[in-house]
Amino acid sequence: MSKKLGKQTLKFDNAYITSSSSVGGQMEYQGPLASEFDELYQDQYMGKDTWEQAELFLMERSVDLAIKKANIAKTDIDYYIAGDLLNQNISAAFSARNLGQPFLGIYGACSTSMEGLAIASTLIDGGYGKYALAATSSHNATAERQYRYPTEYGGQKPLIAQYTVTGAGAIVVSTVPTDIQVTYATIGKVQDLGVKNPFDMGTAMAPAAADTIATHLRDINRKPDDYDLIMTGDLASVGHPIAKELLKKEGIILGNEYNDSGLLIYDRSRQEVFSGGSGCASCATVTYGYVMNQLLKRKLNKVLIVATGALLSPVSYMQGESIPCIAHAVAIERKGNN
Amino acid sequence: MSKKLGKQTLKFDNAYITSSSSVGGQMEYQGPLASEFDELYQDQYMGKDTWEQAELFLMERSVDLAIKKANIAKTDIDYYIAGDLLNQNISAAFSARNLGQPFLGIYGACSTSMEGLAIASTLIDGGYGKYALAATSSHNATAERQYRYPTEYGGQKPLIAQYTVTGAGAIVVSTVPTDIQVTYATIGKVQDLGVKNPFDMGTAMAPAAADTIATHLRDINRKPDDYDLIMTGDLASVGHPIAKELLKKEGIILGNEYNDSGLLIYDRSRQEVFSGGSGCASCATVTYGYVMNQLLKRKLNKVLIVATGALLSPVSYMQGESIPCIAHAVAIERKGNN
Repeated sequence: MSKKLGKQTLKFDNAYITSSSSVGGQMEYQGPLASEFDELYQDQYMGKDTWEQAELFLMERSVDLAIKKANIAKTDIDYYIAGDLLNQNISAAFSARNLGQPFLGIYGACSTSMEGLAIASTLIDGGYGKYALAATSSHNATAERQYRYPTEYGGQKPLIAQYTVTGAGAIVVSTVPTDIQVTYATIGKVQDLGVKNPFDMGTAMAPAAADTIATHLRDINRKPDDYDLIMTGDLASVGHPIAKELLKKEGIILGNEYNDSGLLIYDRSRQEVFSGGSGCASCATVTYGYVMNQLLKRKLNKVLIVATGALLSPVSYMQGESIPCIAHAVAIERKGNN
Repeated sequence: MSKKLGKQTLKFDNAYITSSSSVGGQMEYQGPLASEFDELYQDQYMGKDTWEQAELFLMERSVDLAIKKANIAKTDIDYYIAGDLLNQNISAAFSARNLGQPFLGIYGACSTSMEGLAIASTLIDGGYGKYALAATSSHNATAERQYRYPTEYGGQKPLIAQYTVTGAGAIVVSTVPTDIQVTYATIGKVQDLGVKNPFDMGTAMAPAAADTIATHLRDINRKPDDYDLIMTGDLASVGHPIAKELLKKEGIILGNEYNDSGLLIYDRSRQEVFSGGSGCASCATVTYGYVMNQLLKRKLNKVLIVATGALLSPVSYMQGESIPCIAHAVAIERKGNN
């Protein structure tokens, strides 16, 4: 029997979530979800010499915490699947060196969290191992250096810009049954409606989110309110309503179940984060912290996480290219709620 | 029954190679394997405005050719798995935009070819679809810009340096039986023996290749001469003998079956390529061109391709970090040769 449903959706019967972890920095400490993190660090350097080393530290903390919470050994990890925003996957590669387990490097910009969870679930559900660990990270200062102006330049930003989350999230998927399952993954197609402004990621990514949500619901014949939460990764205040509007045109009405991790992680009324959070860690920390905690407490039973990624590079946008975007969706459910 | 053997090896029963393709540039045209390519272009710009656009063109040609040779439609592709060396995965992301099928971006530096083939085979063998397409590319001029000095600077290189292959390779894996199967994939662990010289990739990557080859042979209980060819990706003349020596210390004696795509693709006696070829396209074009042609002609029956990747970045080595390396191995066999 095929484990693919419809056009883009994989069905998993044996992919359970063993544990997850999330760590963050100062802005996340000051935000409304602070109590949902495992660890928060107030020094942007985390006591290290460079921002890149600080981001790596966060990635390694999230990996160590997820393994510890899973009550397994590092050597139990069959696959480590990780990616980040750096040139090129520095945090992922160096954390893989320290972990010392089979490593698959991925790159999906801010869609990396759900791309990693989808691949981890495929390896486990497919029978290729017992434990897969997926992780991702971002750091405000490394992302600024990578994608925008040198931080020291102090360039002002438009209000449509977003604030890259400093943090990391990790998740362990296993064949060993728990109460919480990864049930479906919908792999996105690249969407590009011609947006060229690297400060306007929300507008660029909204069509990818809308397309993946619509495809997911069609592929497995569900309605939006079949989910307690449909959470996009980092559309923030600009992209969030655009995705809603695009889906409305297709006859898909999103209600109160629809939210965005870039909106949840900060309080825009008192934190200077422009239109909200972004970065791989936005979706990863909110999903592997807050959302997982809600699932464990039975406050949520069925969620669809839609990680959105802008696949731009400093080279491509300086060469005048528009921004290709993608969104991968993963459904996570408490057992017995199908 | 578990589809994982030993520590790091996945076993595939239903992953057949439908088609593959390879395209290259001027140096590849002048090299000894020229007749094994589907297409060769003598203009480094391929008629485009930038080197990055030229590399994208090569990636798209390889994708189109693989689909054409498979005698399927673009819409038959369930998953497109691709990566490259650029900041950040430009060729992969933009080729995914044009292809318009579900896309998983990966990053394994020059190990990307076999990482992609391993993930494609997992998705197909696992029952999650009918056709998966894996592709990768590199371009000498984009890699120089990305990793080293500005090309215009004209910096001299040591003889231990390598010459990045300009080209792209793609492969279609399917549940539809053919004569040639992907039988095993061994996912590598990151190895780092402290090499910090970004010009000496061969020395840096040799331990990763040796570790993956040794693990593969142990995991499935094979000897080196069970294979007609064990081909590393781009160790070239510096790293190739080091890997052989490292394996000898473990009691694994590689004979004439051991080669390297970075040595095969150029003739070092008459081409100025330093110690040999490198880049994602080294392993991809030689495997998806020459090696596949040999398998189709029954001149080879059982091969192990070991793609080697140096997971460095300009930021990490300028910050004084050493070079984490990885190697992924994939076994490809004619049916009835197990």
